[in-house]
Amino acid sequence: MKVNAYGAYAGDKPLEPLQITRRTPGAHDVQIDIAYCGICHSDLHQVRTEWAGTQFPCVPGHEIVGRVVTVGAHVSGFKPGDLVGIGCIVDSCKHCEECDAGLENYCDNLIGTYNFPTPDEPGWTLGGYSQKIVVHERYVLRIRHPEEQLAAVAPLLCAGITTYSPLRHWNAGPGKKVGIVGIGGLGHMGIKLAHAMGAHVVAFTTSESKRADAKMLGADEVVVSRNADEMAAHAKSFDLIVNTVAAPHNLDAFLALLKRDGTLTLVGAPASPHPSPEVFNLIFKRRSIAGSMIGGIPETQEMLDFCAEHGIVSDIELIRADEINAAYERMLKGDVKYRFVIDNATLTA
Amino acid sequence: MKVNAYGAYAGDKPLEPLQITRRTPGAHDVQIDIAYCGICHSDLHQVRTEWAGTQFPCVPGHEIVGRVVTVGAHVSGFKPGDLVGIGCIVDSCKHCEECDAGLENYCDNLIGTYNFPTPDEPGWTLGGYSQKIVVHERYVLRIRHPEEQLAAVAPLLCAGITTYSPLRHWNAGPGKKVGIVGIGGLGHMGIKLAHAMGAHVVAFTTSESKRADAKMLGADEVVVSRNADEMAAHAKSFDLIVNTVAAPHNLDAFLALLKRDGTLTLVGAPASPHPSPEVFNLIFKRRSIAGSMIGGIPETQEMLDFCAEHGIVSDIELIRADEINAAYERMLKGDVKYRFVIDNATLTA
Ligand SMILES: [Zn+2]
Ligand SMILES: [Zn+2]
Ligand SMILES: [Zn+2]
Ligand SMILES: [Zn+2]
Repeated sequence: MKVNAYGAYAGDKPLEPLQITRRTPGAHDVQIDIAYCGICHSDLHQVRTEWAGTQFPCVPGHEIVGRVVTVGAHVSGFKPGDLVGIGCIVDSCKHCEECDAGLENYCDNLIGTYNFPTPDEPGWTLGGYSQKIVVHERYVLRIRHPEEQLAAVAPLLCAGITTYSPLRHWNAGPGKKVGIVGIGGLGHMGIKLAHAMGAHVVAFTTSESKRADAKMLGADEVVVSRNADEMAAHAKSFDLIVNTVAAPHNLDAFLALLKRDGTLTLVGAPASPHPSPEVFNLIFKRRSIAGSMIGGIPETQEMLDFCAEHGIVSDIELIRADEINAAYERMLKGDVKYRFVIDNATLTA
Repeated sequence: MKVNAYGAYAGDKPLEPLQITRRTPGAHDVQIDIAYCGICHSDLHQVRTEWAGTQFPCVPGHEIVGRVVTVGAHVSGFKPGDLVGIGCIVDSCKHCEECDAGLENYCDNLIGTYNFPTPDEPGWTLGGYSQKIVVHERYVLRIRHPEEQLAAVAPLLCAGITTYSPLRHWNAGPGKKVGIVGIGGLGHMGIKLAHAMGAHVVAFTTSESKRADAKMLGADEVVVSRNADEMAAHAKSFDLIVNTVAAPHNLDAFLALLKRDGTLTLVGAPASPHPSPEVFNLIFKRRSIAGSMIGGIPETQEMLDFCAEHGIVSDIELIRADEINAAYERMLKGDVKYRFVIDNATLTA
């Protein structure tokens, strides 16, 4: 089946309309009409070959929401018309320790939604900047939000789960003081989620101008991280800080804010390394620096249900497909509150 | 009370005999005749001013064992003649969250056994290279080993607890694969302890020559970390790696050996930073880099009791006080199996 898509033929070329092929649904497959797809910073990194191994044509997009069109003979959990989502994972080995634990995101044979090997044409996965997608039922998520929120649900599939998972794993909740570093696509979700979990939430930003916005998102306090006095006032007080900033920066400034046994969790990977953190900062309070990558399928469903229950969606700016290249430029300048979402109905041939 | 000691008058001078004053025991104090004192690498760092803030004269030593001479009026837990130990901590605030949790080692007002402020003469604490010491009962540990093992018990008070605490905190035990990096004073204790806890123990060394020794200490496997093939064979397989090496080195090589949710715990702080670890190595398997610093008083007692029960002591080389300077030089070359211990009876005036 041919479907319209938007993608790039080379790392130095803009994205443009193109046609791709989707496989005929197998017994365990769900075929989805994509209504909306969020734009993640990873999309830009991959399509512009800032990360290694990009295959062209490249069709990015892993914040996918839409409606089930058809299901394979053995699919029992979904039926045509269901509102569903696809995140960063479209396949995995299904039998390793990680898959068995529902942590498909840590499977060594994880297949990402775009640019990962597949027997389908053209040999690598193609993402959500397209009209339809066909995915094994295991990786399909149910959406319980009202349909009018559907576009704003899309970013939950990457930005949402990427912050939800570390918040849950390191026990954000009542009585805990949780920091979120960076108020962008990931960070704005982190603030909303940590707030809904009942934690005392402190947002860290480099921009004085984001103070009011961070409070509106749910932050109890906002710290401008360039201000040493403001930072010092929070020394040794955090249980958890989720750091969404991928640009290399000084981690010691945040480690010093953790209490004993606190964790600084990185969810963004910088292209060049952060300055090396001070080991003393780890040793003196038994602190940890950890990493976390998206989330497993059961936890992604849990996150979607949590968000539906708490009325949480992303703050988005809806765009047409022919605005994707301009949106990338604006995203690079941080000029978006807080996620671009493509209206896939605009994917004309 | 004047007692004989061994210490330095300046960072560039050798240690020499000197006399120091110990306070008259207060109501909660225990006065101890020091029988033996281990030599820790920290002693050398501090006395040679490789760490900041050394006060002179400096009397190092925080691996202290001996016998109680007198106790204050309110001391109930110890009596003259008891075999006891003093580790790295001789005081703390006694009322913070950490102290209340028995984690005096993470108290912000921890008073170390030497070179920390005290109302006693001369204004900073003086350590175990001395005939006697007077310490608040809270920081006195009971030794249940047979007396003939006393000298070899001394290094448990720092090298032992520094490795025991992270092994316990990160759940080393049956079914767990635990790495110990570095086979020196700390590492040889880490191997013995992890083995006694029932973990599968892999020792990492840079020296081919240490293979046989590491196995004798209790390692199930030994990996020469310069050998990339040997390292690769253990990829993604460790629950915990305790890294005792303080010299700056590549942490990524060890991070890559951790399985999902594994932790690399650093117990040595390098004078200059390690090369910055790759964030991808943390993110891809939700791995952590943590630090750990000695242990609290209750856990130190637990460690001593565990060691008494399992017949664990340090491998030591007993020296006279006038051999301390030579021992420092040999320690710098790694020429000791595995800890020098001073016979404090040789502290003549
Ligand atoms: Zn993403
Ligand atoms: Zn798997
Ligand atoms: Zn020590
Ligand atoms: Zn305290």
